[in-house]
Amino acid sequence: MPYFDAASAAPLHPVARQALLAALDEGWADPARLHREGRRARLLLDAAREATAEAVGCRPDELVFTPSGTRALHDGIAAALAGRRRTGRHLAVSAVEHSAVLQSAEELRAAGGAVTEVPVDRTGRVDAEEFARALRGDTALAALQSANHEVGTEQPVAEVAEACRAAGVPLLVDAAQSLGWGRVADGWSLLTASAHKWGGPPGVGLLAVRKGVRYAPQGPADERESGRAPGFPDLPAIVAAAASLRAVRAEAAAEGARLRALVDRIRARVPELVPDVEVVGDPERRLPHLVTFSCLYVDGEALLHALDRAGFSVSSGSSCTSSTLTPSHVLRAMGVLSEGNVRVSLPLGTATEDVDRFLEVLPGVVASVRDHLGAPVEGHAAPASAPQETVIDALGKRCPIPVIELAKAFPDVPVGGLVTVLSDDEAARLDVPAWCDMRGQEYVGERSVPGVPGGTAYTVRRRD
Amino acid sequence: MPYFDAASAAPLHPVARQALLAALDEGWADPARLHREGRRARLLLDAAREATAEAVGCRPDELVFTPSGTRALHDGIAAALAGRRRTGRHLAVSAVEHSAVLQSAEELRAAGGAVTEVPVDRTGRVDAEEFARALRGDTALAALQSANHEVGTEQPVAEVAEACRAAGVPLLVDAAQSLGWGRVADGWSLLTASAHKWGGPPGVGLLAVRKGVRYAPQGPADERESGRAPGFPDLPAIVAAAASLRAVRAEAAAEGARLRALVDRIRARVPELVPDVEVVGDPERRLPHLVTFSCLYVDGEALLHALDRAGFSVSSGSSCTSSTLTPSHVLRAMGVLSEGNVRVSLPLGTATEDVDRFLEVLPGVVASVRDHLGAPVEGHAAPASAPQETVIDALGKRCPIPVIELAKAFPDVPVGGLVTVLSDDEAARLDVPAWCDMRGQEYVGERSVPGVPGGTAYTVRRRD
Repeated sequence: MPYFDAASAAPLHPVARQALLAALDEGWADPARLHREGRRARLLLDAAREATAEAVGCRPDELVFTPSGTRALHDGIAAALAGRRRTGRHLAVSAVEHSAVLQSAEELRAAGGAVTEVPVDRTGRVDAEEFARALRGDTALAALQSANHEVGTEQPVAEVAEACRAAGVPLLVDAAQSLGWGRVADGWSLLTASAHKWGGPPGVGLLAVRKGVRYAPQGPADERESGRAPGFPDLPAIVAAAASLRAVRAEAAAEGARLRALVDRIRARVPELVPDVEVVGDPERRLPHLVTFSCLYVDGEALLHALDRAGFSVSSGSSCTSSTLTPSHVLRAMGVLSEGNVRVSLPLGTATEDVDRFLEVLPGVVASVRDHLGAPVEGHAAPASAPQETVIDALGKRCPIPVIELAKAFPDVPVGGLVTVLSDDEAARLDVPAWCDMRGQEYVGERSVPGVPGGTAYTVRRRD
Repeated sequence: MPYFDAASAAPLHPVARQALLAALDEGWADPARLHREGRRARLLLDAAREATAEAVGCRPDELVFTPSGTRALHDGIAAALAGRRRTGRHLAVSAVEHSAVLQSAEELRAAGGAVTEVPVDRTGRVDAEEFARALRGDTALAALQSANHEVGTEQPVAEVAEACRAAGVPLLVDAAQSLGWGRVADGWSLLTASAHKWGGPPGVGLLAVRKGVRYAPQGPADERESGRAPGFPDLPAIVAAAASLRAVRAEAAAEGARLRALVDRIRARVPELVPDVEVVGDPERRLPHLVTFSCLYVDGEALLHALDRAGFSVSSGSSCTSSTLTPSHVLRAMGVLSEGNVRVSLPLGTATEDVDRFLEVLPGVVASVRDHLGAPVEGHAAPASAPQETVIDALGKRCPIPVIELAKAFPDVPVGGLVTVLSDDEAARLDVPAWCDMRGQEYVGERSVPGVPGGTAYTVRRRD
């Protein structure tokens, strides 16, 4: 049963499993103790730190282990901001950072600080010059991911690092998605990562802080991990994380090239096989193993379940798959279609046949979901005459129904005529303009509907 | 090779190991995902939460998993204090809480709040009435351990909980050392624990918060663990923690009785076998598996290493074994001898022969350390006449040298004569009075030595 959600969590790498088992026997004691079990644990911890620092490209004393990538980000950002409190309270981040970064940004805003979210283009990439312009005299910290977790696009880390250096601003790089594939370009001041993304166990994050970076850990601390990550260390998991990072790095070049070719095949074939699909993210400057596409007139949750029944595990940034009923902030920032969104992220060792089988199955699965939702069959010529404005009341209806109703009404709209969709689903804000792009129709604009909380009227003009 | 440091960390319980291996195969995926691997992980997480809540004695939705006991304490205390910010900013704790609690207290003090440390008696136990008197109109939270981690003494949790209830103050109980042995008495509002203390894996802490307790998590949060513990959950470890808690509870009554008898033997035999030893902690109301004693004229670190060479792993609260060069705050709060301190904490399944062998080996090990340090051979009669005051300059010398020099000078002191020890070692503050207690001599008092940072003069009068 193919699992294509490696960017959420990967099955434990065989080397990690082996190292974990060994460390459960040898490394369960407290490395701070003086007895032989403690000393043995200390040796394992030191060796894991050295191996991991080597893979990260930093000194062992610059690296601490945290309980997760999220904690590394939360704690690292808080400490870096506090360390430069005198410079100011401004944080610059890309609009497509991991939610943990945006949670920290929200925390800063709530405490009276300021945040600039640098926008991205339609591929999900920030522009280094635009990022540079976001740096101010009071900028305490900048944060940029090495590559995006939802669409795979690589960010211009080296250029942004250079801009940060010139501005005297420390740069934190969230390398969660890329560290297994290779070192991050030089120039960062802080770096974070998460072991379960590269086939290590859960329970291990990395936080590297370059010597000389101002860093003031917040909250209570103990003597563990240089005072930067309190609590008894999860040594077996740390040992397994270090061993598996080394192992995946050893096969990264060959396996990366292989998965890159499989993803290229998905990127090329999906739009040929499935009508009305938008493949998103940068086709070249991207993670080897990850591709995301959105299907018009499809409910993301229904699509996920249908793929699951067909034996494929994927994830989705569609609003109907999130507890907040809003589309992923990444897709929103890119301004691309969010409905029927599918992220395919291939684990190491994914078989070519599994990808082929996915491409075989996908068209039927999408068609059945569309059929079930009553998605329109398109291609009607415009009528010669008809009412000049059509209003579709899709209030209370969830993604992708508003767009389906728009498409169904369209055959009756004359060229030059207007259609307005009333919707209180956040996804429509993204998906109605995206539909217009895909159909070559004119998106006129939106206005709020008085008296309806969240109600918005989206207007489209028929071009042909 | 007997390992007697279970209170620091215990080897993984066989049930935990088995559960961990199974969960590595079945529970590596993200439990927040909709695909089958995610749903399977979710089922495991829910089942682990239910089993653990049952063992704790709370509802599953009152319990979250944290990355460690320390993080449970740090985060739980911060959120409980913030939740009652309007009532006030006072925290009442016992003086012998785990350092994680005292770190949180220090954090509160630094932020302008107030802390009362309720003192303990010489067994390490707080008095419930004295604790009750520490509760004020502005007390936001009280914290009390179920049993002490260094000396094993059980605290009067039920009585203190009743006092807290009467005062309308929530009580946090740190059950790290006792949860494997049984449920904590009712009446707590928050409860914390740590899986690696009961034979579970590292990486799992527990934080239970009763419904209705005001609780405002601090710092950035995500959707994990009801917004109370951010970051990807370490599910294999959580599953192993739950399974091993159930397993150790099943054997707790029988194994507790067996270890209690072994500890009784140590408590009784050590003072018979080794001269000048003080066994500390409550002899009855205590953890089954833990005993602590201190040996006069012994360097704790040298004793640890000598026991280690003899094949026994123990820990110590002596100043010379800590990075801060101060004796354990627990021994200080109890006012007992800190030099030559040894904590023996027996893991489940400890063999009687190992304890017997420890008792065989200990006298020779202590004697050899004393011999190496030139500890005095005692029992001299007092001289008929001699100088009225002797001054011993032990400045710059570390525990236990100041006490050894005091004891060596004593034979030359006439009855009624004074001896003053000059020392800048923090341990002397505890150990000179403790020596007087053990020797039946009169401790006159201390005064600072002008011009010597940390320098103190301790004066003793010879009684017989």
